[in-house]
Amino acid sequence: MTGMNNFFIKHEDNPDITKERNAGTFDVRRMASFLYGGDDKLERRDEIRAFVKSKPELHDPVPIEFMTREERVSNAARKIVALTNHLGAIDASDFFGEGMYFQTLVMGRDPHPLSLHFVMFIPTIQGQTDDEQLDEWLSLAVARGIIGTYAQTELGHGTNLKNLETTATYDPKTEEFVLNSPTITSAKWWPGGLGKSSNYAIVVAQLYTQGICRGPHPFIVQLRDLETHKPLKGVRVGDIGPKFGFHSIDNGFLMFDNYRIPRQHMFMRHSKVEKDGTFIAPKHSKLSYGTMVFVRSIMIKDQATHLAAAVCIAVRYSAIRRQGEIEQGAGEVQILDYQTQQFRLFPYMARSFAFLFAAYEIRDLYLKVNEQLTHGNTDLLPEIHALSSGLKSVISWEAAQGIEQCRLACGGHGYSLASALPDIYTSAVGGCTYEGENIVMLLQVARFLMKAADEVQSGNARLADICNYLVKPNSAHSRLTNWNTYSDADIIGDFEHVARRQVFRAFELLRRHQKESSAEEGWNRASIELCKASRGNYMSDRQLDEIREGIYRCLERIRPNAVSLVDSWDFDDMELHSVFRAFELLRRHQKESSTEEGWNRASIELCKASRMHVRLYLVRNFLQKVSTAPHASLREPLTDLTRLYVFDLITSCPEFLKGNYMSDRQLDEIREGIYRCLERIRPNAVSLVDSWDFDDMELHSVLGRRDGNVYPALLEWAQMSQLNKTEVLSTFEKYLGPMMKDGRSKL
Amino acid sequence: MTGMNNFFIKHEDNPDITKERNAGTFDVRRMASFLYGGDDKLERRDEIRAFVKSKPELHDPVPIEFMTREERVSNAARKIVALTNHLGAIDASDFFGEGMYFQTLVMGRDPHPLSLHFVMFIPTIQGQTDDEQLDEWLSLAVARGIIGTYAQTELGHGTNLKNLETTATYDPKTEEFVLNSPTITSAKWWPGGLGKSSNYAIVVAQLYTQGICRGPHPFIVQLRDLETHKPLKGVRVGDIGPKFGFHSIDNGFLMFDNYRIPRQHMFMRHSKVEKDGTFIAPKHSKLSYGTMVFVRSIMIKDQATHLAAAVCIAVRYSAIRRQGEIEQGAGEVQILDYQTQQFRLFPYMARSFAFLFAAYEIRDLYLKVNEQLTHGNTDLLPEIHALSSGLKSVISWEAAQGIEQCRLACGGHGYSLASALPDIYTSAVGGCTYEGENIVMLLQVARFLMKAADEVQSGNARLADICNYLVKPNSAHSRLTNWNTYSDADIIGDFEHVARRQVFRAFELLRRHQKESSAEEGWNRASIELCKASRGNYMSDRQLDEIREGIYRCLERIRPNAVSLVDSWDFDDMELHSVFRAFELLRRHQKESSTEEGWNRASIELCKASRMHVRLYLVRNFLQKVSTAPHASLREPLTDLTRLYVFDLITSCPEFLKGNYMSDRQLDEIREGIYRCLERIRPNAVSLVDSWDFDDMELHSVLGRRDGNVYPALLEWAQMSQLNKTEVLSTFEKYLGPMMKDGRSKL
Repeated sequence: MTGMNNFFIKHEDNPDITKERNAGTFDVRRMASFLYGGDDKLERRDEIRAFVKSKPELHDPVPIEFMTREERVSNAARKIVALTNHLGAIDASDFFGEGMYFQTLVMGRDPHPLSLHFVMFIPTIQGQTDDEQLDEWLSLAVARGIIGTYAQTELGHGTNLKNLETTATYDPKTEEFVLNSPTITSAKWWPGGLGKSSNYAIVVAQLYTQGICRGPHPFIVQLRDLETHKPLKGVRVGDIGPKFGFHSIDNGFLMFDNYRIPRQHMFMRHSKVEKDGTFIAPKHSKLSYGTMVFVRSIMIKDQATHLAAAVCIAVRYSAIRRQGEIEQGAGEVQILDYQTQQFRLFPYMARSFAFLFAAYEIRDLYLKVNEQLTHGNTDLLPEIHALSSGLKSVISWEAAQGIEQCRLACGGHGYSLASALPDIYTSAVGGCTYEGENIVMLLQVARFLMKAADEVQSGNARLADICNYLVKPNSAHSRLTNWNTYSDADIIGDFEHVARRQVFRAFELLRRHQKESSAEEGWNRASIELCKASRGNYMSDRQLDEIREGIYRCLERIRPNAVSLVDSWDFDDMELHSVFRAFELLRRHQKESSTEEGWNRASIELCKASRMHVRLYLVRNFLQKVSTAPHASLREPLTDLTRLYVFDLITSCPEFLKGNYMSDRQLDEIREGIYRCLERIRPNAVSLVDSWDFDDMELHSVLGRRDGNVYPALLEWAQMSQLNKTEVLSTFEKYLGPMMKDGRSKL
Repeated sequence: MTGMNNFFIKHEDNPDITKERNAGTFDVRRMASFLYGGDDKLERRDEIRAFVKSKPELHDPVPIEFMTREERVSNAARKIVALTNHLGAIDASDFFGEGMYFQTLVMGRDPHPLSLHFVMFIPTIQGQTDDEQLDEWLSLAVARGIIGTYAQTELGHGTNLKNLETTATYDPKTEEFVLNSPTITSAKWWPGGLGKSSNYAIVVAQLYTQGICRGPHPFIVQLRDLETHKPLKGVRVGDIGPKFGFHSIDNGFLMFDNYRIPRQHMFMRHSKVEKDGTFIAPKHSKLSYGTMVFVRSIMIKDQATHLAAAVCIAVRYSAIRRQGEIEQGAGEVQILDYQTQQFRLFPYMARSFAFLFAAYEIRDLYLKVNEQLTHGNTDLLPEIHALSSGLKSVISWEAAQGIEQCRLACGGHGYSLASALPDIYTSAVGGCTYEGENIVMLLQVARFLMKAADEVQSGNARLADICNYLVKPNSAHSRLTNWNTYSDADIIGDFEHVARRQVFRAFELLRRHQKESSAEEGWNRASIELCKASRGNYMSDRQLDEIREGIYRCLERIRPNAVSLVDSWDFDDMELHSVFRAFELLRRHQKESSTEEGWNRASIELCKASRMHVRLYLVRNFLQKVSTAPHASLREPLTDLTRLYVFDLITSCPEFLKGNYMSDRQLDEIREGIYRCLERIRPNAVSLVDSWDFDDMELHSVLGRRDGNVYPALLEWAQMSQLNKTEVLSTFEKYLGPMMKDGRSKL
């Protein structure tokens, strides 16, 4: 059972890494097959890999880390054209599987000038156009006859779409929309490929027709001349400059100056503007939720893969790096033997598996829900949309943290771009911000959870499986006795308990704050409305202060007294009417604003509730998936990972101790479990990371090489440094040489 | 008391940021004076700043983020020569104060070609040469007649100096050392400025003389010709390639091929090699500890400043960024009003103050200890050395985490290099690895703590103030009742309790593991020695297994039985003698190896103990410093920060709950305290970050601008992008244009 287990073993590999591969207790190819969903999937990976290796036009002339930004942008443009020329090599309908793999092998971790074209431009055309528009634009975009991007975010506006400033004003005389960027903050900012590559964009702008703002709508807009690629008159467009990562793409800015587009360039599947400017409001559509869930599943798979790549690099390097001695005279040890190193890496190894399983599960859920949608059933959509938002948030953050730990665990060499770890980090951590900022995402999940909690409390909950734990009875104590007899059911029970507790804790806090803040917010609201009412100084500062005092101390009591209070200020009728209208408005908005202010004050606890909801899901799904592994030899190492993951979560979360739910002794048992799991995972560590079936081309890391022959490769890599093109830099002649000569002459 | 409080306020500033500055409750200049140690220090900062602004040669021609790596390296060389030409502008003896500030203003966050020359090369000459050598090298180095670096780390060897591979073999015939790099892993790797800038290096190599290895020693070695700057024959040197950060410096590699240097180029203050090759061993010197403590104080100040800069940028930006609504119709709110945003930023704001105060305290301790050293008293040195190692580890990691949180809290714009946050992060996070890898540092602290714990248990502890808490009696419960009456003394008591508990918990675990592992390690050790003893197959595999079994099951019992056990195997006398010698050796090594193996198994808990020791110190020092603030108006906002810091530490550490030391109710109270502190800090947030007296030149961040006019500045910054030099990139003509033309022709 040794050697044959790991198809990565080859002659002339570093003996340390071969030793590790021989020590593995399971068949790596079999594990890979389980991870990716079958032998046929693995075979397709092999074929795609072989195809890419056979096509020189899909390769980089030199490693991209030695290129300037301009060179990276150019190289990415070259490769994405070549890649899309070869789409026949894959089953493009399977983007989650074959498409992502093909793209990763060729494009690496950087986005490219067509990223948004495929991910946002084409899907928006498919989802937002009426039939005529679909005919006009879809085939053109699919044929790559134009390059489009999606321009929504503005310099001063991100998540809050309602306040976008770009305007599209309908002119019925010419039957055109006039696009304008009225302020600097209205400049479109960030869209990928917008700066230099795209000649079209879907622009989200405030629609004005018949003098009324109708809210943000999508318009398709030509930006550059098809022949010369120069920006058209009225369009100002450019690159927004260098970033933490994503060096190969021209994220751009865009401003309009009375730029006119035909009426038909507003996408009209949902809303419509007729020739005379009549606006026809949209019917509500939940269908976009579905697409978002699918995009999230892709993003989660991406993040899981980034994390797994980082763990793979760090574990392989830790197997060949020898440093320090544990036993005197026995020689330096592999740093993977250090408990601290294992503790840095293995919990994140566990997460990479948990996250990949979650990605597959979300994709399957999407397919299931989509199936239900065809029967008109949208019940589960909000729940799954919330879950996918939460997973996006938790996974992108934990993946980023894990990648940095992997980088740090490689010491100095982790800081070199040769390790690839800096690049993996900057790519992955972007996911905390794009596609919905993480905190905003968690608060979205919390809205869903608070609604569920409210339903549970009022006794009319209609919850799907994912939230079912909210109606289960509380238990007083964890049933854990020994770390190695801690059953799946008990684990889930404990995570359910803690998640439930936190959801209702946040719910109570929210209720309390909403009551409190309705009193305080009363003043804010009242002051604004009363100021409006006091046009012409109907009220003095002192009078406003008096109202403030009254409202602030007790909003409940002010209502019955309002008339007499106001009477005492000696207004005439017109004025009084205006004051009352203000109070009227106040009462109407009161509930809303207190809801939002209370929400803000509870938001830390709300985020925590969301995180626990998501972690419960991740734990349950991880356990469930592992239980389906087709052989005990696979289940055993995976079970070690599930336990380490669970124990790691518990020890880092004081909530498990609250109300003495877990005792000190139980916590000690869990700590013991961590140490034991680290020991158990140690011999399988390299085989487990091998199971991800990473090719050296994909990892693109000198430290993570399959063969473990890291040091000669590092030396070879360094030779390519930009600074090594000449033996002596011009800095010597210009600055350092004269300085030293001068210094020596003075002695 | 408004407006006049903050000297940052100017006309035409963003009204939101002026509003914030007017809301502050304290005098910002007064706070800055407290932070930096007096009005005179602030005045010197003003003068140095004015000087730098007046000298165009100290400025960048374009922001460095738009430069290629080659341009950055060249720009840094130009500026560091100009800077060192102007050293007369500062009191260079005050490196901690004036020197660091001058360097930061001119060089920004990047290291430069003379970084190691000043920080390592010159101090090593001062510390390691004999008098004659000092004369020869010091003035040459100080006059900048040569550029030197410090080459210790090798491609395959970092923290474990004992195993460096570079050799320096003494040849008495020519009275020279012959330097060699016998393997690839022996290549010197990483030293700053080694690749291209330096023409000299202090090289640490294994000294061989009279056929014996004498361990690693320092040699001064010329690498490049003084006139042509070409590498000398026998020297292979170059740049190691691009990194996560530090783009402006040529970290290098270095290999020797029979390269000869005169005998006098070995630094001989401590060890000596005489003409005939006689080696004179060094006397132990603890003095280098002192310098390390000073270097650490500088590093901690650096990290604190990086974190403070990140917090300053994020807080100012959060004050002018408006996004989303809390109150309906009241317009978008400053994102600083969101509780979640405050919770992301303010705990790190608190840390930036805590860390700065620690840096000053360590510098003062260094001066005090240095004073004691002149009287021959070295008692405190190990303790302070351990403390500074621990602070380096905890602070570099928490600073890095905080900087990333600040970056993420700025949303998309935080990902742009315009924010400076990516650059701050990559600069700061390097500190987790260089000058001692963080985990290794924590384990060093733990060695010190375990020694102290051992002394306490054996009743003969002689501890300085910093460790005094180890002998205090345990208390059963925290005395906290209300978050706002939680006294300094009670806080310190609680942190002492938790640190003490963890130190002794780790100590017990260590003892237990050392006992256990001495049994297990017995086999490892025995197997090696017995294999040696069994030259010529004296023992069969079965016999070895039998010994293994015996030793493994009970090492204590094997000793008395060893003879009869061995008797039963029927050896002759010579063989028996050899077996007994092996057992002899085994017994001798037993204690050592079990110590180290047990150490490894307890290392997670040991690291935790070190962290708590350090956090206790940070908390105590923070509280103490704040209590000395010269006015209540300064003490109040600082006290809010101390409380937030303390509460944040407690809630993220389950240890406070263990043994019911803190009850659920107390934990709830602490959570309440967090929310209240966030509210209290909110109005002072901008003033608090202003107190760091950052100049726009120093922050170098579009988001963190003093005037808050971020958006126009972002647009202006973007214009400078490399990609905006031409309206149409060559990618259009080469790749994208033909692709689109082809696509359109097919429709």
